[in-house]
Amino acid sequence: MNWFESSLQVFEWIGTIAFALAGAMVAVEKRTDLFGVIFLAITTAMGGGIVRDILLGYFPARFFTNDTCLLLSLFSALVIFLTARCCRNYYRKNKIIVEKINQVFDALGLGAFAVSGTQMGIEAGYGDNAVFVIFLGMTTAVGGGIIRDLLLGEIPFVLRKHIYAVAAISGSCICYLIYCSELSLLTGMAVGLTLTFLLRMCAIRFEWNLPKAF
Amino acid sequence: MNWFESSLQVFEWIGTIAFALAGAMVAVEKRTDLFGVIFLAITTAMGGGIVRDILLGYFPARFFTNDTCLLLSLFSALVIFLTARCCRNYYRKNKIIVEKINQVFDALGLGAFAVSGTQMGIEAGYGDNAVFVIFLGMTTAVGGGIIRDLLLGEIPFVLRKHIYAVAAISGSCICYLIYCSELSLLTGMAVGLTLTFLLRMCAIRFEWNLPKAF
Amino acid sequence: MNWFESSLQVFEWIGTIAFALAGAMVAVEKRTDLFGVIFLAITTAMGGGIVRDILLGYFPARFFTNDTCLLLSLFSALVIFLTARCCRNYYRKNKIIVEKINQVFDALGLGAFAVSGTQMGIEAGYGDNAVFVIFLGMTTAVGGGIIRDLLLGEIPFVLRKHIYAVAAISGSCICYLIYCSELSLLTGMAVGLTLTFLLRMCAIRFEWNLPKAF
Repeated sequence: MNWFESSLQVFEWIGTIAFALAGAMVAVEKRTDLFGVIFLAITTAMGGGIVRDILLGYFPARFFTNDTCLLLSLFSALVIFLTARCCRNYYRKNKIIVEKINQVFDALGLGAFAVSGTQMGIEAGYGDNAVFVIFLGMTTAVGGGIIRDLLLGEIPFVLRKHIYAVAAISGSCICYLIYCSELSLLTGMAVGLTLTFLLRMCAIRFEWNLPKAF
Repeated sequence: MNWFESSLQVFEWIGTIAFALAGAMVAVEKRTDLFGVIFLAITTAMGGGIVRDILLGYFPARFFTNDTCLLLSLFSALVIFLTARCCRNYYRKNKIIVEKINQVFDALGLGAFAVSGTQMGIEAGYGDNAVFVIFLGMTTAVGGGIIRDLLLGEIPFVLRKHIYAVAAISGSCICYLIYCSELSLLTGMAVGLTLTFLLRMCAIRFEWNLPKAF
Repeated sequence: MNWFESSLQVFEWIGTIAFALAGAMVAVEKRTDLFGVIFLAITTAMGGGIVRDILLGYFPARFFTNDTCLLLSLFSALVIFLTARCCRNYYRKNKIIVEKINQVFDALGLGAFAVSGTQMGIEAGYGDNAVFVIFLGMTTAVGGGIIRDLLLGEIPFVLRKHIYAVAAISGSCICYLIYCSELSLLTGMAVGLTLTFLLRMCAIRFEWNLPKAF
C-alpha cells in the first residue's frame, strides 16, 4: 500500500472510530449490556460499509478481511463503556453535553463515510455512473445508523433529523464533482467531509428544516 | 430493445409509479419533510427490486443502471408532495378518500411487481425452480413496502393486511403457470397483475380474512 | 452425497425445525393469521441462512435450491398452528409452559445454526479467517430471529436476552477451535451445539447477566 492509498484509508478509519463512538454512546444511553454496546458500536460503524460492499458485489465484504476497522470499533466501544461506567454520575447529570459530543462524532462519521463510499464506487469502476456513486456515498454514510436505530426500535435518524442524509449527499456530490474536474480525489474527499460536517453542525445549531407538505 | 422487451418493461414502470405514489402518500400522512417523502417513495418503489437483484446476484442492482425508474419515482414523489401542499385543506378533510386512492395504487404496484419479479426470475434462467421464481415475485412485490414500514416504525403491511402477500403469490403463480403452459409470458403477466389487483381489492371491499389460531 | 456430508446437513435440519417451531410460536402468541404464522416461521428458520449466503456471495442463496428446509419450515409452522387451534384453551392458560418450550427450541436452533454457519464458512475456504468464520456462525444463528423481531416491531432478542449472541459466538468459537486442532469438524459441531444450548439454558435458569454501564 503506497502513500496515496494510505491517505484514502484514513477517511475510513475516521468514520469507523467516530461512528463506533456515537453508536456506543446511543447504546449506553439505552441501557443495553456490555454485549449490546459492542454490538451496536460495530453495527453503526460497519453496517454502512457492509451494505455498500454487497451493492458493489464484493464477497466477502471487505470489512471482514480488514481487521483494523473491527478492532477500532471494538476499542472505541470499550472506551465509551468504561468511561460511562467510571463517570456514571457525571454522565447521567450532563445528558446535554453527552448528546452534543455524540452529535459531533456522528457528523464526523457521516462526512467521512460519505466521501469514503463515493471513492470506493469510483475505484470500483463506476466513475461514469453519478447516480450510483452518490447513492453509494449516501448508503455508506447513513446505512449503519439506520440499522442501529431499527435494532433499537426507533425511527431512523435519516427520517427524524433535519438535513441528515441531505448533508451526506451534498458531501458525496462535491467529492464526485471535484474528482470529475480532474482535481485530486483526495482534495475532493477532504472538501466533501468538511462540507457534510459543517452542514450537519449548522443544521443542528440553526435548526434548519426542509419544508413539509402540511 | 425490441417491441417484446419494451412490453415487459412497462410492468416495471407501472409498479414503480404506483408504489412511489403510494409510498409518498404514506410519508405525507406521517408528516415527514420533503426529503422523507422522496426517500420513502424511492424506497417503496425500488426496495423490492433491489432485494430481488441481490438474491439473483446482479451487481450493481439493475435499478442503478436504469435511471428511468429512479426519475419516475422522484417525479411521483414530487407530484404527491406538491398536490398535498396545494390542497392541504382538502387532503386533511378527506382522509378516507386519500386512503382509498392509496390502496388502489398499492394494489396496482403489488400486481405489477409480482409479475415483473416472476418474469426476471424466469429470464435469469431459473424457469425450472418454481419455488425460487415465485419467491422472487413475492419479494419484489412486498419488499419495498416492508422496508418503508420498518423505517416508519410500523408492523409491515404484509403482517397487518389480510390477503396481501397471498395476493402477490397468487399473481406470481398464475403468471408462472401460464408461462409453463407454453403461452406467451406477456399474457401470463397481464393475467397475474389483474388477478393480484382484483384479489387485493376484493379483500379490502369484503374484508376477507385468513383464519387465526385463536 | 456421502455419509459425512449427510451428517453435516443434519445440523441444518435441526436448526431449521427448531427455529421454525419457535418462530411459529411467537407468531401465534402475537395473534397473526395463518399466513403470518407460516411467513414468520420461514423467516425465523431461513433468514439467518439467507443472510449468510449473501455474505458468502452464493447466488441464489442455497436455501432456494434446497426444498427440504423450506418444506420442514412449512410443516413445522402448520404443526404449531393446528396444535394451537385445537388446544386453544390449554394454550392460553399455560403461557409459562408454552414460553419454556419455545425457549428450548430457540436454544437448540441457536446452537445448530451457530455451528452450521461456522462449518459453511470453513467449507467455503475461509478457514484461515477466524473473525469472518465466527461472524458467519453468529449471523446464521441470530439473523433469522432479528428479522422476525423487527417485522413484529420488537427490540430483537439479541439485545434483550442475556447471553444470547454470546452463547452463539461461544459455540462457533469452540467448533472452530476443534476444527483447527485437526480433530473432526463433526466433533466440533456437536460440542459447539451442546455448549451453546447449555449456556443459553443456564443463562435463563440462573438469570446470568452481562454488566451494564450504569
